[in-house]
Amino acid sequence: MSEFFTNIPKVEFEGPTSTNKYAFKFYDAEREILGKPMKEHLKFSLAWWHAMNGDGKDIFGDPTIKKDYGTGEVGTMKHALARVDAAFEIMQKLGMEYFCFHDVDIAPQGKTLAETNKNLDEVTDYMLEKMQETGIKLLWGTTNLFNDPIFMNGAGTANSADVFAYAATKAKKSIELTVKLGGSGYVFWGGREGYETLLNTDVALEQDNMARFMKMAIEYARSIGYKGDFYIEPKAQEPMKHQYDFDAATAIQFIQKYNLQDDVFLNIEANHATLAGHTFEHELRIANINNAFGSVDANQGDPLLGWDTDSFPSDVYATTLGMLEVLRAGGFTNGGLNFDSKNRRASNTYEDIFLGFVLGMDAFALGLIKAARIIEDGRIDEFVKDRYSSFSKGIGKKIVDGETNLVELAEYIEGLDEFENPGSGRQEYLEAVLNQILFTQE
Amino acid sequence: MSEFFTNIPKVEFEGPTSTNKYAFKFYDAEREILGKPMKEHLKFSLAWWHAMNGDGKDIFGDPTIKKDYGTGEVGTMKHALARVDAAFEIMQKLGMEYFCFHDVDIAPQGKTLAETNKNLDEVTDYMLEKMQETGIKLLWGTTNLFNDPIFMNGAGTANSADVFAYAATKAKKSIELTVKLGGSGYVFWGGREGYETLLNTDVALEQDNMARFMKMAIEYARSIGYKGDFYIEPKAQEPMKHQYDFDAATAIQFIQKYNLQDDVFLNIEANHATLAGHTFEHELRIANINNAFGSVDANQGDPLLGWDTDSFPSDVYATTLGMLEVLRAGGFTNGGLNFDSKNRRASNTYEDIFLGFVLGMDAFALGLIKAARIIEDGRIDEFVKDRYSSFSKGIGKKIVDGETNLVELAEYIEGLDEFENPGSGRQEYLEAVLNQILFTQE
Amino acid sequence: MSEFFTNIPKVEFEGPTSTNKYAFKFYDAEREILGKPMKEHLKFSLAWWHAMNGDGKDIFGDPTIKKDYGTGEVGTMKHALARVDAAFEIMQKLGMEYFCFHDVDIAPQGKTLAETNKNLDEVTDYMLEKMQETGIKLLWGTTNLFNDPIFMNGAGTANSADVFAYAATKAKKSIELTVKLGGSGYVFWGGREGYETLLNTDVALEQDNMARFMKMAIEYARSIGYKGDFYIEPKAQEPMKHQYDFDAATAIQFIQKYNLQDDVFLNIEANHATLAGHTFEHELRIANINNAFGSVDANQGDPLLGWDTDSFPSDVYATTLGMLEVLRAGGFTNGGLNFDSKNRRASNTYEDIFLGFVLGMDAFALGLIKAARIIEDGRIDEFVKDRYSSFSKGIGKKIVDGETNLVELAEYIEGLDEFENPGSGRQEYLEAVLNQILFTQE
Amino acid sequence: MSEFFTNIPKVEFEGPTSTNKYAFKFYDAEREILGKPMKEHLKFSLAWWHAMNGDGKDIFGDPTIKKDYGTGEVGTMKHALARVDAAFEIMQKLGMEYFCFHDVDIAPQGKTLAETNKNLDEVTDYMLEKMQETGIKLLWGTTNLFNDPIFMNGAGTANSADVFAYAATKAKKSIELTVKLGGSGYVFWGGREGYETLLNTDVALEQDNMARFMKMAIEYARSIGYKGDFYIEPKAQEPMKHQYDFDAATAIQFIQKYNLQDDVFLNIEANHATLAGHTFEHELRIANINNAFGSVDANQGDPLLGWDTDSFPSDVYATTLGMLEVLRAGGFTNGGLNFDSKNRRASNTYEDIFLGFVLGMDAFALGLIKAARIIEDGRIDEFVKDRYSSFSKGIGKKIVDGETNLVELAEYIEGLDEFENPGSGRQEYLEAVLNQILFTQE
Repeated sequence: MSEFFTNIPKVEFEGPTSTNKYAFKFYDAEREILGKPMKEHLKFSLAWWHAMNGDGKDIFGDPTIKKDYGTGEVGTMKHALARVDAAFEIMQKLGMEYFCFHDVDIAPQGKTLAETNKNLDEVTDYMLEKMQETGIKLLWGTTNLFNDPIFMNGAGTANSADVFAYAATKAKKSIELTVKLGGSGYVFWGGREGYETLLNTDVALEQDNMARFMKMAIEYARSIGYKGDFYIEPKAQEPMKHQYDFDAATAIQFIQKYNLQDDVFLNIEANHATLAGHTFEHELRIANINNAFGSVDANQGDPLLGWDTDSFPSDVYATTLGMLEVLRAGGFTNGGLNFDSKNRRASNTYEDIFLGFVLGMDAFALGLIKAARIIEDGRIDEFVKDRYSSFSKGIGKKIVDGETNLVELAEYIEGLDEFENPGSGRQEYLEAVLNQILFTQE
Repeated sequence: MSEFFTNIPKVEFEGPTSTNKYAFKFYDAEREILGKPMKEHLKFSLAWWHAMNGDGKDIFGDPTIKKDYGTGEVGTMKHALARVDAAFEIMQKLGMEYFCFHDVDIAPQGKTLAETNKNLDEVTDYMLEKMQETGIKLLWGTTNLFNDPIFMNGAGTANSADVFAYAATKAKKSIELTVKLGGSGYVFWGGREGYETLLNTDVALEQDNMARFMKMAIEYARSIGYKGDFYIEPKAQEPMKHQYDFDAATAIQFIQKYNLQDDVFLNIEANHATLAGHTFEHELRIANINNAFGSVDANQGDPLLGWDTDSFPSDVYATTLGMLEVLRAGGFTNGGLNFDSKNRRASNTYEDIFLGFVLGMDAFALGLIKAARIIEDGRIDEFVKDRYSSFSKGIGKKIVDGETNLVELAEYIEGLDEFENPGSGRQEYLEAVLNQILFTQE
Repeated sequence: MSEFFTNIPKVEFEGPTSTNKYAFKFYDAEREILGKPMKEHLKFSLAWWHAMNGDGKDIFGDPTIKKDYGTGEVGTMKHALARVDAAFEIMQKLGMEYFCFHDVDIAPQGKTLAETNKNLDEVTDYMLEKMQETGIKLLWGTTNLFNDPIFMNGAGTANSADVFAYAATKAKKSIELTVKLGGSGYVFWGGREGYETLLNTDVALEQDNMARFMKMAIEYARSIGYKGDFYIEPKAQEPMKHQYDFDAATAIQFIQKYNLQDDVFLNIEANHATLAGHTFEHELRIANINNAFGSVDANQGDPLLGWDTDSFPSDVYATTLGMLEVLRAGGFTNGGLNFDSKNRRASNTYEDIFLGFVLGMDAFALGLIKAARIIEDGRIDEFVKDRYSSFSKGIGKKIVDGETNLVELAEYIEGLDEFENPGSGRQEYLEAVLNQILFTQE
Repeated sequence: MSEFFTNIPKVEFEGPTSTNKYAFKFYDAEREILGKPMKEHLKFSLAWWHAMNGDGKDIFGDPTIKKDYGTGEVGTMKHALARVDAAFEIMQKLGMEYFCFHDVDIAPQGKTLAETNKNLDEVTDYMLEKMQETGIKLLWGTTNLFNDPIFMNGAGTANSADVFAYAATKAKKSIELTVKLGGSGYVFWGGREGYETLLNTDVALEQDNMARFMKMAIEYARSIGYKGDFYIEPKAQEPMKHQYDFDAATAIQFIQKYNLQDDVFLNIEANHATLAGHTFEHELRIANINNAFGSVDANQGDPLLGWDTDSFPSDVYATTLGMLEVLRAGGFTNGGLNFDSKNRRASNTYEDIFLGFVLGMDAFALGLIKAARIIEDGRIDEFVKDRYSSFSKGIGKKIVDGETNLVELAEYIEGLDEFENPGSGRQEYLEAVLNQILFTQE
């Protein structure tokens, strides 16, 4: 009875065509937006873990889909190689040019570290071949330092030096693979870097150790020729009660404290913003104004739920306001839009993989189109510029230029007959402008 | 210095025209949607308290706008009557055909109850005149049983019989005014009907008393010829720690327990749904499937904030999914869409009143248009129908018809070779259909 | 490397003694509180799933402990029987007199339903033997209708008649086992009885079906001689976006609507209260005043986290205020305090099982002791009684007796010279009384 | 009728005695804890705004108490001076040695800035007199830069240079008053320093301006001889949608970015921690390990409510874990425990002021006593020390000393036969230890 879901139709991978139900309605890779093709703005990336390995499992339930990719087996090298073929087929059919991976995503764990590494080498050899064939690139690599029970107390922040060393060993290999595959980013994913209870935790030592871990990783990566960026991905909580990289500001505080700003930037995930009590666009803005904008994990949470749903992004308000911040930050350089998104547990067919990506890619395409229209429309930007205009002249300019002080400001106020009216904030008007742009055809 | 904001331009009330910045972009009162003009579907209503009396005050700050309506005074009968003129001017310019009020909203409190009532009589006489002139109608009336310190522990749920009696006296007058003005609804607003701490509260007595209060009010209203509906407006908390009418299901539990279902229905507020951890459409669905759908308080909360922001509605996902439930419930009969929405504190000009309503009316107009297109498109409804099709035949039909039992079901399962595949839930596909409908022009 | 945690010390089960670190500090089974031994007030129960099967797994990580109970194997009949021995050893050493189980908890799933049922029969035969030996009793049984992918869309609320029938078949067996083991309760656990998205859900049909499911189960159970209670266990969300039994009030609304009040009561879980935005004591109060109080799932959530942590209860404020409500409800009859609590992922030794129970049992023992002292102290109860005293005389009594109306109340108010001062709510005083009772020795 | 609450008993100020119901049960000013009298550890402070001016008002209701201090008037100089007498009487009767104030708290606003300042001078002259008489001291001063509508868009982050200058002028005066009264702290309270919507906000300019504001304030204060600390008080939101000083980490990020660490520290408020999704002790720990610990605003929020309830602290878990962090940070130097706590709306008598303080002071006294016992007991600290012991030897020491790298760590792991078991996290045990200490008499 538990084999109920094995009679799921075999993988077929009919990609989007102009007529089928996976057809993009809004994404058009080559369409120019603000002088650049959509695909260059968006740099869509497939996340190996969710797309290729996601099986519908949740904390209350077993997998609803067994992605064996026609091999009839899971967890073998044969399966791992068939999965590479499937991934490239999916990316090609969807027109995605990037992917991301952890070490454990792509190759089976061996009985020894040496065997595991050999498996990783073989699979990445094959991936490299496929990359050369197809032009598909690695956006970034990372290391799974949270699933193995050895990491139950974290990796860089573990209470055990052996665990720290083991994590460093795993990260070393992932960095090598990232370099081998030409990735432009490496993510320090904070999986369990946090605490469950302060009663048993030395936060100061753990955070210092995390910084030591990152410094060693950066030093090693640079020593083998890595030129890309490193990323911290803020997350407030889950699975730990409290993660050390709670949100963008917290991660930047860490970067500043340990002088990591030349190498480490942020990978902002939409759902993690929600978990921290922020909007996606807030996190992007904070990253950008602190020169920490790096990359994006595109997905969507549910503000009424307190866990990481990692849903495919569908809310075009969020994608529009998010892409507006990306455009304002100058767009992606080394980073991109990685779909850290998984199908819902009950969306348990191969077909749903495509339907998920079509939803997400169309939502971000709309976000880009609408964000560009907001910029071209100009009403919002002009309103903001005008709203602060008093700081570009007179006493305002002196404030901004650091050429005044409290005594002078008090004299200024005492001599003032009437305040300049700061004007209405016009939030309702600006929201109406946004709706007009969103809901009329470009 | 505190008079800083008095030099706000005097009221002008230039309503929307086809060209000015208040022009509706989506709302067109007479446009037919599913065979009925938009205005009949939407039944927009102005809330006296926010629109006419809202002054930008918040818990950390004094008013930012003094709505004296050109009289130079506030809290006088002169002001109250000028406010009636202003309200009808606003409603006419915006094409709104309904309004709602509390007692204290429309007339100044006198030194005695008799004087207060006289004030109420005079103002409502004038309102009636304006209503006859303009065709504008009262959607519903209610009573302010929360602002006066006497109601610090609630009204129908107060710990004092005198306070209960005083609340009943005030409600009696409001019901009379509602009848006088021909309202089709009366709301039992649960202002402080809840508790601050269980340590000092007899929940059982308080809830019984609340039911007694409602029964007396209904009995009295019917005795003076009232034919309309009564409404409970679910709210989870604020100002009390816990409100007795937490959400739709809780309010229905109360209605069922005290046998109020023939008279009392729900007035669903969008922001209150958020406070209870639900979506707007969830609350509407629960009301509808329990024959409790009545009216809507249209506004919007911020899911990241824990208080009632009462913002003008702008999220077209919410208005679309909300209007879809309204259409499925058969549309409004006695109820309507009352804008329980206020301008942001910094939107402190008369102009912002219009800008707020234009935002909200356009957002709900879009919601209606898109909801109708969802119905006409049919893909979502058909998917749902098909998804449950196994319950209209065979063993499924027996289950629904109540003609089977556990023994028979177990025998059925034992005899089953293979389960019918329940099929993918297709959430991503359905969300893509929604986006296609929302973001392509009708 | 993944075998890292296998060198965990073998099971030893040194239970609490007067001197070791598992010693109870507050729980004393035979100590009389309000005329009854603590153990009869508390009726502690072990939850098979967490205590015997919990392995530290979470959504981001593999198990941290393999509870093989010395057999070296997991998932076999040998393991299942050794687990029975271990469970009874744990319960005896801790002095727990009750346990709870799902079907899948206690016996391995067979290849066929018949084989599964045979396994269940064998294991329960052995359990029955142990129960007779030890005097340990079954508090309640339930059915796991959420883990198998077949239940991805719910069980009683599935979109498929076959799934409904299969769920009914499983429930039938669990009810038989509950009767066989002499359980006094059977829980309808709402695992996935809810929805992921309204876009694909027919809520009305699903709720009607759920009621049909319950009615058939009750009818069957009564037909085989079951005299105990049925319970709904309110839960707001997780794993589903929205559960149908959101909180106590919602579950009672369902019970009332479908006329289930003679058979179905509530099993209140502390952590689920938190997820619904309520306190534990609120849910108990609501259950009690609606004659729906049944049983308790004792555990603790983290109000800052949005998922079910199922931690062992430690907050003595919550256990005190919870036990106060239990005492006010007359104490447990068929129900009891089932520890739906699991060790933290990093508490991964057999020893931690004991440490968890000692924490939880002591916390509830303190809760009982302190709740009894609150009652004996009398200050809080007297304050409440006095606070509502105006309803036991004069106009207040008429209100309560239903012998007045709005007209009379208005006349009463008009004739009133001065209101009786309702008095301060004295929340700070009452909280100080609570702290005095909690933090001075009995 | 609205005068209902004026017949509240006149101020009496019977302070705690050994026998009355305001008697402290746990606080004993002179009792030595860890070698220092309790009062020196705790440095309790009265917040003028809540204690002397709090009137029970909330967003849905008018004041429930009129604190005229027997003058029959409010808002006059006579009232302001009587309020000084009352404040010192309350502090003396309660044995509080510190207070805090904003400018507008202590003196009525005049028609001109000059008149306002004159009022402030007169009142502070009188306060100084009383301070000399009684030995009571100013803990810190601050400026109300949020209540006046002029600050609707913030003060240091206003969109208008005039508003910025006016805020600076007000801050200048408050700093002078703080110096005059010998305060050891000045708080930059972030009242409205944040945003309502990103659509109209230039976050980068606003944050730069905020830093400019602080720098000018610090420079001015130092120029007039101020030797004390400056504080930022983190708050996540309310009244603004998003505050710039969201939490401790965010405020430290700001301090680091703008090089303010020599002058600016944190004033941690318990309720604000809750609003940011953190515990009180978390915020204190983060402050401490970043050398930013300054002072504490003692109060309590409700984790189930999303606004600043500013309740008197009563949860002894929170006060214990908070005081433990304070002790670990070396205790207060310039800072102290300011009760940013207000009576509940329905606690509307003068007597409730005392009852509130007794609750809060006793709760923190218990917190101190229990925190000291945790330290003396040693089990928790030893557990933590032992848990990280692998970092004080061998490879762990090399990691901490920065004397290793990824290559060496990988070699180390490859040569390792078996990992040192990191050991159970023992959360349940540690929580049991905490309960044992809390619930057994010292």
